[in-house]
Amino acid sequence: MTNSAQLHPIGEIARKCGIDEEYLIPHGKYVAKIDLSILQANKHKPNGKLVLVTAITPTPLGEGKTVNTIGLSEGLNYIGKKAIACIRQPSLGPVFGVKGGAAGGGQAEVLPMETLNLHLTGDIHAITAAHDLASAALDARLYHEEHLGDEFTAQTGLKRLNIDKNRIIWKRVIDHNDRALRAITVGVGGGLNGVERKEGFEITAASELMAILALANDLHDMRKRIGQVILAYNLDGDVITAEDLEVAGAMTVLLKNAINPNIMQTVENTPVLIHAGPFANIAHGNSSVIADRIALPLADYVVTEAGFGSDMGMEKFFNIKYRQSGIAPSCVVLVATVRSLKSNSGEYNIKPGQPLPKAISESNVELLSIGAANLGWHIKNAKSYGLPVIVAINRFPHDSAEELTFLQHYAIEQGAFACEISEVFMQGGKGAKALSHHIVNACEQASDIALPYQNSDKLSDKIQKMAHKYGANKANLSAQALNDIQVIEQLKLDHLPLCIAKTPMSISADPNLKNVPTDFDIDISHLAVSAGAGFIRVYAGNIMTMPGLGTNPAYRHIDIDDKGNIVGLS
Amino acid sequence: MTNSAQLHPIGEIARKCGIDEEYLIPHGKYVAKIDLSILQANKHKPNGKLVLVTAITPTPLGEGKTVNTIGLSEGLNYIGKKAIACIRQPSLGPVFGVKGGAAGGGQAEVLPMETLNLHLTGDIHAITAAHDLASAALDARLYHEEHLGDEFTAQTGLKRLNIDKNRIIWKRVIDHNDRALRAITVGVGGGLNGVERKEGFEITAASELMAILALANDLHDMRKRIGQVILAYNLDGDVITAEDLEVAGAMTVLLKNAINPNIMQTVENTPVLIHAGPFANIAHGNSSVIADRIALPLADYVVTEAGFGSDMGMEKFFNIKYRQSGIAPSCVVLVATVRSLKSNSGEYNIKPGQPLPKAISESNVELLSIGAANLGWHIKNAKSYGLPVIVAINRFPHDSAEELTFLQHYAIEQGAFACEISEVFMQGGKGAKALSHHIVNACEQASDIALPYQNSDKLSDKIQKMAHKYGANKANLSAQALNDIQVIEQLKLDHLPLCIAKTPMSISADPNLKNVPTDFDIDISHLAVSAGAGFIRVYAGNIMTMPGLGTNPAYRHIDIDDKGNIVGLS
Repeated sequence: MTNSAQLHPIGEIARKCGIDEEYLIPHGKYVAKIDLSILQANKHKPNGKLVLVTAITPTPLGEGKTVNTIGLSEGLNYIGKKAIACIRQPSLGPVFGVKGGAAGGGQAEVLPMETLNLHLTGDIHAITAAHDLASAALDARLYHEEHLGDEFTAQTGLKRLNIDKNRIIWKRVIDHNDRALRAITVGVGGGLNGVERKEGFEITAASELMAILALANDLHDMRKRIGQVILAYNLDGDVITAEDLEVAGAMTVLLKNAINPNIMQTVENTPVLIHAGPFANIAHGNSSVIADRIALPLADYVVTEAGFGSDMGMEKFFNIKYRQSGIAPSCVVLVATVRSLKSNSGEYNIKPGQPLPKAISESNVELLSIGAANLGWHIKNAKSYGLPVIVAINRFPHDSAEELTFLQHYAIEQGAFACEISEVFMQGGKGAKALSHHIVNACEQASDIALPYQNSDKLSDKIQKMAHKYGANKANLSAQALNDIQVIEQLKLDHLPLCIAKTPMSISADPNLKNVPTDFDIDISHLAVSAGAGFIRVYAGNIMTMPGLGTNPAYRHIDIDDKGNIVGLS
Repeated sequence: MTNSAQLHPIGEIARKCGIDEEYLIPHGKYVAKIDLSILQANKHKPNGKLVLVTAITPTPLGEGKTVNTIGLSEGLNYIGKKAIACIRQPSLGPVFGVKGGAAGGGQAEVLPMETLNLHLTGDIHAITAAHDLASAALDARLYHEEHLGDEFTAQTGLKRLNIDKNRIIWKRVIDHNDRALRAITVGVGGGLNGVERKEGFEITAASELMAILALANDLHDMRKRIGQVILAYNLDGDVITAEDLEVAGAMTVLLKNAINPNIMQTVENTPVLIHAGPFANIAHGNSSVIADRIALPLADYVVTEAGFGSDMGMEKFFNIKYRQSGIAPSCVVLVATVRSLKSNSGEYNIKPGQPLPKAISESNVELLSIGAANLGWHIKNAKSYGLPVIVAINRFPHDSAEELTFLQHYAIEQGAFACEISEVFMQGGKGAKALSHHIVNACEQASDIALPYQNSDKLSDKIQKMAHKYGANKANLSAQALNDIQVIEQLKLDHLPLCIAKTPMSISADPNLKNVPTDFDIDISHLAVSAGAGFIRVYAGNIMTMPGLGTNPAYRHIDIDDKGNIVGLS
């Protein structure tokens, strides 16, 4: 249930940050969509500064990146600046699975959190519908071409697509954690039920349409990108796009409302734009370009969050989102906790879903100093992109003064512009006062974005450069990967940037290598192109794109109470 | 694209019909949801009259039932009465398939029709999500119980459900016409991908949750009904409900917004409530009880539509919706067209998707007099439920004066209270002036609802009585049907009313028997219980619950234009 914070009508929140009512499409009292016509209206206004929030390598303990993204936007307002937060929309799957919601928390939460965590304004459902329309269209075409055989063209007036049913790469999607749908057979028995073939569902956040929504510049750009998505190959080995299937227009129509970002507010009435939620492994893990473009002319500071650690969402912000949009951050904030860094020492026995060992709550600067290397790596990684890096230590009650002092010194030693304690969960914006001042100062620094490769580099060279970026000795390309590179070069799509699909649980591609792995290779199994989103997925390990439900899923505890209020959602 | 009608802000439309702003949840400028708290506020106000719109047996020509439902609500306003229309929400499947939208048309259309025909406020997506959450939960439980084996209870603290994987009756749903998903295998290969088993998808309108949304009295009633839905049987043959799986609360939470009806307006600014869209064969085919309950105290007349002919949606209105809600109509309007009735003569060669024979546009009272028998049957059928029946002849340009005069006399002869020409498509409310006056008069008649069976009748007797109602000699029950009756009696659910799942294309259960079939039996293949919705589905023939896409699907022509407007949606 939403806590008792004093929410303001969303029209008031919007007006205060410069969004007139004419641009608002209300969805209830506390949520609105923002019409894209505002982009045209504000196009001559100067942009504020963009602050990119990232984190150390994730641990089961949680680092509080979303809380701090929200909290820093509150903090900047607290010190008298105008700030807006831009975050991703949570997926339903985790809400009913194990993770719970993704609204932040405490005094740094987006409200009403039930609205954020459930359907919001239906954008994810729209993506599911648009994505699966393409699948239905593809299977229908496969069926009709097979069923009508040589008569197909005469009877329909359409050219045969000759879809290769073994090379359909557009899997269906659903916004649930549903293990049983990972590997399925459709059209069982054939005949009127279609053509029997192997298929699978991924969770909607993994849809290329989600990445397109997050990267598109406007409705026409989205339409063009949707036309370019590769659905399958034909029997001659040529690609079949959504345009070829004549379904791209209808898919776009289904996303016509979804392209408008959503505005909500934090506990402290700071405006938050919520838009798109692509994964940060098989996609780029950042909220939308459109939301950033709307927010930047309206605020002094726009605070946005990238998925997982700086090796994942932040890297993809620079190499994918920045390359495509040209919008650069002015500083990076790196979120860490004492506990998570201590756990990186490898000396605590922490397992997801089991009680934490008591020892982790006891002060231990020695183990912290071992695990802090992970923070050091992320500071250097973030700095290597050419920006000042501020470390925000998300404070927990058991953190000792010695530990905090150690970390602050350590971060500066490693090159951080500043390192401060964040207490936004308990205190809201006030808890990020010092950090906010550091952000203001950091954003005044001259910066020069440095990218690890050029789009024009040879595809295999780009991969090697990224492997080195992670500290690997080299990338080993499988035969399949080498073949995929050839295919992508033949398609003349090798100029696209990379989206390295690897585990977020290690800086390397092996989730078991904690802290700062050294002396390792990265094995590349295969590549695939997201031609509409505009990146090449380079697979370094198996990426699970359809989670499952555990034995104690969150849905068991979610219900309505006697008064009809939602309980059990967190 | 929406035509140029002068739309009013939805708050204004709502206020004029007595819905204060405090009860409105706006979704953009022209759509709002209505908070259920209005029911409590208006509970002492007297109800207006309910007008139930039905039709003759559907033909490929289309009869214009939705157009006339909308048009009659405009007509009643035109003659100075306060009227509201209550209709079902269209499904996405047909919008992108062949049928196009379901917003009415001409001067009797709900606007903006793009909003109505696409996501509206996300109710159908919410049903899909809630429904498929139960499926994911069921397959996850099946997996964990099999995977952990004897350790399951010790490790999870949960009692085993022992789901019989061959008797899972809760299929997944999706809101698309997707033939390839009719028959699928999930969990292919087993192991971490779940338990391999046969499965299938139905279109979302076929979900029991859709029927529950349409029949629930309030949020708590919906919660209770969702708990009662039967998902599967266990290995001992006992039912497993959503309550047993501990997923009913979360399903309800996903439907918490969907339970609020949507308000829009017609071309003539008449308020329209849109809520739920259950099928009229495997479900009861009517919009929601809640929408009726909200509308009735606010209007002199509430005009609502039932799916297919009077043997389908209207029958189910009385036997299911009226039995459960206690809300009775005051008169029935039967929509017919000259062309459709002529086609019932069987003398024209009409095929869906092919050009109409020219002859059908030429006046032919002789063939009309043969086909009119279908109208006669529906007049008598509707009258048998105890209400006055008004025939609305939906006029087409080629209808001759002789044909129209014949039909008007014929309808009165057959017992209609009145028969008038409707020209609402061209003229809006003005085109239903005479009809509206007849409705006012008919609603003043004393009426006494007569139902064809008592809930307490023996289940097999109820089936025979319904067979006789269609004019059949008798119902033949298969061995499976007889067994199902026993099971339902053992479950003590045999007191529920019937939902006869048969073709809508004939009064009989054989789609090839046109006009008024005589001397036929009805073969009952099997029965199934919708325990949450509260009816017993009695299958008289195969009912397709997952349509497919044709060779020239509507999506091919749907796109955005240069200005970003939607084109090709109709």
